[in-house]
Amino acid sequence: MYQSFDILRDPTVGPTRLALLRAELARLSLDGFLVPRTDEHQNEYLPASAERVQWLTGFTGSAATVIVLAGTAAIFVDGRYTLQVRDEVDPAAFEPVHTAEESPGQWLGRHLKPGMAIGYDPMLHTVSGLRRLQTLVSDAGARLVPVAANPVDLIWTDRPAAPLGAVSLQPASLAGEAAEEKLARLAKILVDGKVDACVLTQPDSIAWAFNIRGQDVPHTPLPLSFAILKATGKPQLFIAGAKLSEAVRASLAALADLSEPGAFLPALASLGAAAARVRLDPDTTAAAIADAISTAGGLLVDGPDPVTLPKAVKNSGEIAGTRAAHVRDGAALVRFLAWFDAHSADPGLTEIDVTEKLEAFRAETGRLEDLSFPTISGSGPNGAIVHYHVSRETNRALDRDSLFLIDSGAQYRDGTTDVTRTLAMGTPTDEMRDRYTRVLRGHVAISMARFPKGTSGAQLDALARMPLWVAGLDFDHGTGHGVGAFLSVHEGPQRISKLGTTALEPGMIVSNEPGSYRTGAFGIRIENLVLVTPAEEIPGGERPMMGFDTLTLAPYDRRLIDVALLTDDEILWIDAYHARVRQILTPLVDADTARWLDAPTAPLVA
Amino acid sequence: MYQSFDILRDPTVGPTRLALLRAELARLSLDGFLVPRTDEHQNEYLPASAERVQWLTGFTGSAATVIVLAGTAAIFVDGRYTLQVRDEVDPAAFEPVHTAEESPGQWLGRHLKPGMAIGYDPMLHTVSGLRRLQTLVSDAGARLVPVAANPVDLIWTDRPAAPLGAVSLQPASLAGEAAEEKLARLAKILVDGKVDACVLTQPDSIAWAFNIRGQDVPHTPLPLSFAILKATGKPQLFIAGAKLSEAVRASLAALADLSEPGAFLPALASLGAAAARVRLDPDTTAAAIADAISTAGGLLVDGPDPVTLPKAVKNSGEIAGTRAAHVRDGAALVRFLAWFDAHSADPGLTEIDVTEKLEAFRAETGRLEDLSFPTISGSGPNGAIVHYHVSRETNRALDRDSLFLIDSGAQYRDGTTDVTRTLAMGTPTDEMRDRYTRVLRGHVAISMARFPKGTSGAQLDALARMPLWVAGLDFDHGTGHGVGAFLSVHEGPQRISKLGTTALEPGMIVSNEPGSYRTGAFGIRIENLVLVTPAEEIPGGERPMMGFDTLTLAPYDRRLIDVALLTDDEILWIDAYHARVRQILTPLVDADTARWLDAPTAPLVA
Repeated sequence: MYQSFDILRDPTVGPTRLALLRAELARLSLDGFLVPRTDEHQNEYLPASAERVQWLTGFTGSAATVIVLAGTAAIFVDGRYTLQVRDEVDPAAFEPVHTAEESPGQWLGRHLKPGMAIGYDPMLHTVSGLRRLQTLVSDAGARLVPVAANPVDLIWTDRPAAPLGAVSLQPASLAGEAAEEKLARLAKILVDGKVDACVLTQPDSIAWAFNIRGQDVPHTPLPLSFAILKATGKPQLFIAGAKLSEAVRASLAALADLSEPGAFLPALASLGAAAARVRLDPDTTAAAIADAISTAGGLLVDGPDPVTLPKAVKNSGEIAGTRAAHVRDGAALVRFLAWFDAHSADPGLTEIDVTEKLEAFRAETGRLEDLSFPTISGSGPNGAIVHYHVSRETNRALDRDSLFLIDSGAQYRDGTTDVTRTLAMGTPTDEMRDRYTRVLRGHVAISMARFPKGTSGAQLDALARMPLWVAGLDFDHGTGHGVGAFLSVHEGPQRISKLGTTALEPGMIVSNEPGSYRTGAFGIRIENLVLVTPAEEIPGGERPMMGFDTLTLAPYDRRLIDVALLTDDEILWIDAYHARVRQILTPLVDADTARWLDAPTAPLVA
Repeated sequence: MYQSFDILRDPTVGPTRLALLRAELARLSLDGFLVPRTDEHQNEYLPASAERVQWLTGFTGSAATVIVLAGTAAIFVDGRYTLQVRDEVDPAAFEPVHTAEESPGQWLGRHLKPGMAIGYDPMLHTVSGLRRLQTLVSDAGARLVPVAANPVDLIWTDRPAAPLGAVSLQPASLAGEAAEEKLARLAKILVDGKVDACVLTQPDSIAWAFNIRGQDVPHTPLPLSFAILKATGKPQLFIAGAKLSEAVRASLAALADLSEPGAFLPALASLGAAAARVRLDPDTTAAAIADAISTAGGLLVDGPDPVTLPKAVKNSGEIAGTRAAHVRDGAALVRFLAWFDAHSADPGLTEIDVTEKLEAFRAETGRLEDLSFPTISGSGPNGAIVHYHVSRETNRALDRDSLFLIDSGAQYRDGTTDVTRTLAMGTPTDEMRDRYTRVLRGHVAISMARFPKGTSGAQLDALARMPLWVAGLDFDHGTGHGVGAFLSVHEGPQRISKLGTTALEPGMIVSNEPGSYRTGAFGIRIENLVLVTPAEEIPGGERPMMGFDTLTLAPYDRRLIDVALLTDDEILWIDAYHARVRQILTPLVDADTARWLDAPTAPLVA
């Protein structure tokens, strides 16, 4: 299993460890210390060695910041975690603060006193983040002190070692472009940008540029590492040699000079000493990295990670792989949907049972490398919790006459999937069907959209919402996030959201996932991954348009569709999609499933 | 008549005047000089005294920049004016440059040589504009030299005097809020923003804040003036005393300390000498104004003009006035549409005839203060020129079996209108009807939209385009601009456009004007003004929504509507709108027009 339903919850650890940390701070003459839940790469999923917030406080959620001062300490979480933090953390040690009510910055502003020295680990704060913090702290007359050895690590005596997951080469057919060519393209970007070098700190950028994958963190095949690209000359790759087989080492050595991670900071200093102009992304690069270059005399040039955009625009190899992954995943999904249909009324069946079943169908493909994220699998009211992750404690027997929401994804060697379906259990209410149909209309509006060059996701986001808006409803998440090719399931810069200002380009993959949530009752979300493509030429049209090609293959639940609310165009689109699902998946599933698939994929209007 | 169809075109003036200017520059030891088409207030419509580009070059368009160097000179225009500039300007004197091909900045970068001194009039460049220019010029090793007395003015011996249009008080019922209250609200914004004062340089901001209107420029009732608002104490208003009647002077003197415009720069210096913190908008404030404050020791705080947002959100008095203006304007429009229907096939009828007729119907209301902009009135291919303004030279007899596009607006004391209708002449083609119906669907999508707090115009823009995008079509202008209340017909920050990032709020007025243009053949645009309102509560809805209430009253041309392409909801909306048009306007027009109005406003499906 690639996910666990056990929560290792121990709020008693906090007070003792906090006291140890405070003693360490006193020794360092610090009045406080910042503990963000992140690592040197700003990863979404952390290796165990970077779970400092969990170790210090007991909090197991995926986003938090801890601030420790001599007399007080606080843990900051967002709306997802305001309940969980109270279960997992001793509030007498760490005051839980909802970031919507007070940000870490506002809290600091209130607690800082002139002359205070606040420590931070410069590998865990980005250049941009530190700039904001710096202003705030100096406004209060206090100062920030970088600490080379993180004091949490000094007291965390049984801290796990950094992961040493084996690195594999991504086959040329799936990578779609040789690493030599990618690196040459990147070098040209540096030449054009008049910089000598560029630092890559995001492991998915490194994975893409060198056509490698790793096993260092859950759910994303990241090889934790750093790299320096050069305008001229071989790149440098800083990665633990223990992760490399002889074959992988040989391949990589042809592309780059290989060193252990410990050589990274000295290499930055050498760049600086050579007075190099070095591009780095202030939003993702640790302050320590920037400092190492500038202190040694290098010139920093702010600029986005040059891999981000090329990586977002998938090539034909990546697209073919992703399509194959979605066909395979679709077959597993349809087997699951048929099983759910037969068993959802079984007495005692729980959310965990359902979640395990879906993972089992995926595992039976024989190609599952990992889940792309922990499955979100909620019955009835649990479906209304947008980031719900079932545990032994919250596990719920399936409701009757309600909805089941299941949002899941897989990592296959050829591609990453992410799909949500909302399923009827028993007889859904009219309100459920009305809302489901509105969500579906928004989802189909994105699917059918055509748009010219230069259109951003921010411009399309409202299409997915209008059927809800006219009913006085909305959802509090974006319509879609970017997705990688056997890489991160959350990838930028492409997205469909109010904040998505990047122009969409053919080859980008985004999710299309509007929703509607009635707190305490039910949740609805419908999600496919879609690929931006040049649209077929339109007779009478004057300008080329782009559109979305749907990658995900799984039927919608027709018991939840109120056909009377759909336009003819919407019905045509859904029928065509269902016909495609049936045509592609029928040959790939067992006979019973194939028979089952006929009804859900039949035309909506007989 | 509030518009002229005569173009005063004389390309022969350029060479002589250019020679005079160069002599003046030599006298001032300058290697070049910048002549932007603007005035001290960044106005859209200029007083004659500020038409320096026209006087120097002969160019009569509404947007241009001229750069004069010792050996070469260029005039920069956008896509609207690339043909016109060649008719009006001697290219041997001023090289015409399309800004899409080379911006003034790029051109300067190419022509500047180290050590060159380039003069500029610091009252004609904004703080932001000058910052960009400064970077560019110093990158080239040259320098910018502010010139207190504009050398164009020194050689322009018959330059008209600054306008002295009479100022009137906007009645309290129409202004909707006493000037005292507005000024108190603004003072509070300054207190909250921790600044001592703020400079207002935009005449429409001053008009709104002091509840006055002027007559200094065409089409917008602006009182050219400057003002300084204070966190505590009376504002200062700098306006020519000759514009003020005794009664107006007495009213204004109760609100502000009044001075002649010549006292403005010294007053800024006094602010500076008092070390005041002064907020000003770098995007609209002349560099000379900022310099006067900072040179004298004041501290500048960048911030948007504090009037902009309150002015954009109309109060109940302004809304009631605007509604009344639209009813009056609608009655005139319907008389015009009935006349057009009867006469569009008259032999020899021209675009100018039609334009004059519409203005005459508006004048017959007895309440017309001005047109809100020169009417855009194009038959057949002229309708495809987005910013077409008919002249004696381009005047075209009405086409047969084609389309007429007329985009016009009026200034009434109680409100500003702006409306576009596209009308069939003879029998339109299927393509024309298809496109018209698509434009109408986009226009209706905006009209029917519901959206939550925080939604920006950028998010809604695509709704107006999708019916065109799916057909491979698009239009190269925004969907809508903000509109004032008896003020500017183009007002920010509210807009419906890719660039419209300001959240829409109840009380804002924007246009709703998608279009489709087939170059050389026909143009289609459909425009209403709409008011953002809190939408009626929706049964089952969970969140309050906003919507658009349509202000403009005039039927769409049903001969151009392909009803088969419309959804039921769209037909319902159009029928309800037409019923409202008929109900409101029938009592206000003559019997013949009232009879005519029956058919265009009948339900689309009998």
